[in-house]
Amino acid sequence: MKKLFLLTTAILALGVQGAYAQDAEQAKEEKAMELRKFDEAKGFVGPEDYFTGEVKVDEPFSSGDEFKDYQGAMVHFEAGARTAWHTHPKGQTIYIVSGEGRAQSEGEPVRKLLPGDVVWFPADEKHWHGAAPGSAMSHLAIQSANEAGDVVTWLEQVSDEDYTQEPQ
Amino acid sequence: MKKLFLLTTAILALGVQGAYAQDAEQAKEEKAMELRKFDEAKGFVGPEDYFTGEVKVDEPFSSGDEFKDYQGAMVHFEAGARTAWHTHPKGQTIYIVSGEGRAQSEGEPVRKLLPGDVVWFPADEKHWHGAAPGSAMSHLAIQSANEAGDVVTWLEQVSDEDYTQEPQ
Repeated sequence: MKKLFLLTTAILALGVQGAYAQDAEQAKEEKAMELRKFDEAKGFVGPEDYFTGEVKVDEPFSSGDEFKDYQGAMVHFEAGARTAWHTHPKGQTIYIVSGEGRAQSEGEPVRKLLPGDVVWFPADEKHWHGAAPGSAMSHLAIQSANEAGDVVTWLEQVSDEDYTQEPQ
Repeated sequence: MKKLFLLTTAILALGVQGAYAQDAEQAKEEKAMELRKFDEAKGFVGPEDYFTGEVKVDEPFSSGDEFKDYQGAMVHFEAGARTAWHTHPKGQTIYIVSGEGRAQSEGEPVRKLLPGDVVWFPADEKHWHGAAPGSAMSHLAIQSANEAGDVVTWLEQVSDEDYTQEPQ
């Protein structure tokens, strides 16, 4: 059950559509903090349908079994790696932890991202994010599910032409 | 207005009670991503009523004007610094970014926290978190507001006796 929950959380954190694994009774019995130690072996590779290049997703988390308020994960992009174009029904926050990144809203310039930068992608805004061509980048991604339990709609891959634009 | 919003967000991220500054019309007009570059000067010191030692709060964020799903911030604790005891009406997630930390649920052992560790503090659980006695620690904190707009209830400071217990 624990494994199933972790897997479900992991899938949600990646943004694949799905419903939260909930067990309200279990949540009510939960009294003390839940510490999940970092375990590199539990990370998983970002699927090639949704990413270009090498992407690893670590440490998915969510706001407990009782709440659907948010879920997220740490995402590591190797140099040149990026998400496909996508939208989030309730928006997304990314917090840049290390390296140099890129992000773009459709029709807007590519932006350069550095550690400590925070990006808010509004609901239903088409965008992508990832590493710079010459540098890896890690960010924490946080998103909320809509009433149907969806957190993302994946679209086409980001072309090299779009990706390699000079950032602003 | 922008400054007021940032200040309100900052206060919320710290967990002081309050309501979200909302402007639904403005949010609807928002089309492209909002990139907030890291600006050390915008950080603020953790108030002594709620913290022991040197604590700095950087880069508060929230899930957009339209949504109350989550809000958070990066919190830097110098060695020996920690929060007061507190509870969150809808729980809290912390993600350890760097250094070595400590956290404790009331009546449970003190736990040691390292980078990549994720802690979920359930709703209404009394706890504290902070740096190790001999090491700074930075974590991202994420919490949700209840219907009244509250994210935290602050309690008494953590005594040196509690804080210096050998962690497990």
